[in-house]
Amino acid sequence: MAQKTDLSKLNCSLAKALANIGDWWTLLIVRDAFLGASRFSEFQQSLGVARNILTTRLQGLVDAGIFERQGSPARPQYVLTKKGKALLPALLALMQWGDEWESERRPPMLVTDTAGEAAQPVVATTRSGKPLTADNTRFTPGPGANKRTRAFLILRAARKAAS
Amino acid sequence: MAQKTDLSKLNCSLAKALANIGDWWTLLIVRDAFLGASRFSEFQQSLGVARNILTTRLQGLVDAGIFERQGSPARPQYVLTKKGKALLPALLALMQWGDEWESERRPPMLVTDTAGEAAQPVVATTRSGKPLTADNTRFTPGPGANKRTRAFLILRAARKAAS
Repeated sequence: MAQKTDLSKLNCSLAKALANIGDWWTLLIVRDAFLGASRFSEFQQSLGVARNILTTRLQGLVDAGIFERQGSPARPQYVLTKKGKALLPALLALMQWGDEWESERRPPMLVTDTAGEAAQPVVATTRSGKPLTADNTRFTPGPGANKRTRAFLILRAARKAAS
Repeated sequence: MAQKTDLSKLNCSLAKALANIGDWWTLLIVRDAFLGASRFSEFQQSLGVARNILTTRLQGLVDAGIFERQGSPARPQYVLTKKGKALLPALLALMQWGDEWESERRPPMLVTDTAGEAAQPVVATTRSGKPLTADNTRFTPGPGANKRTRAFLILRAARKAAS
């Protein structure tokens, strides 16, 4: 069925990222790791999720290379890998969008560096620093594009230019 | 059951953002809107998703204020609102993470501005431009924090400082 299409098979890095992260709860586990949680009990305390579900999710994050287990096998710590740590900009961007649009601009959490300096809203720019917006952003086929993506992007670009 | 906890009820803008966006497929619909799609048939062609599922997802995006319907009710266009357009940094951050870690650095899609200048990888920084990383990022209770969030963040900060 269409609903069960495997996202990881789509020729799009966004789809692959979403497939790899798993589901929304998974990203909240990653959030807790950024907050310093590493023990099963700490994730459970934060998320209030059933033990068997959390076990499955943590295993999925290890399988995806986002967490690695460290320390005693009987009481492991779940530590973000380099790949897991690289989720920070995406996670902050989603959190800031939630602050702006879903939390009445009263953020439950403030993000700072260790010196207490506030995070800048994550923005999209070109390499020279020009803002990228919904209106000036263009998508073109990259080196990993398959035929379908290539055809689709060329069609979309033509329609967008004509509209 | 814990699995059915309503993410939107959690005192966290990331959770609220995730609840508001809906699910992974929803974000791919938003991606297609950034690519210039606006018609039901265009989203369906891109995603290969069943009509009834796409109908539900598009309605959800309208309800969430991410899309608005424009034009003829019989053949509406689905257009990103300001709130929907504000998802661009999060969407690019996730896509770039997928490029880096899941697409063997062979991006299916290249992102540029209208002049063809490539997008910069989305980064997290402080207001003065210092890089925020997994190691130097701190979360403190904000004006919207409830008691539980406040207690949890204070505990986590203390444990992180001690580790």
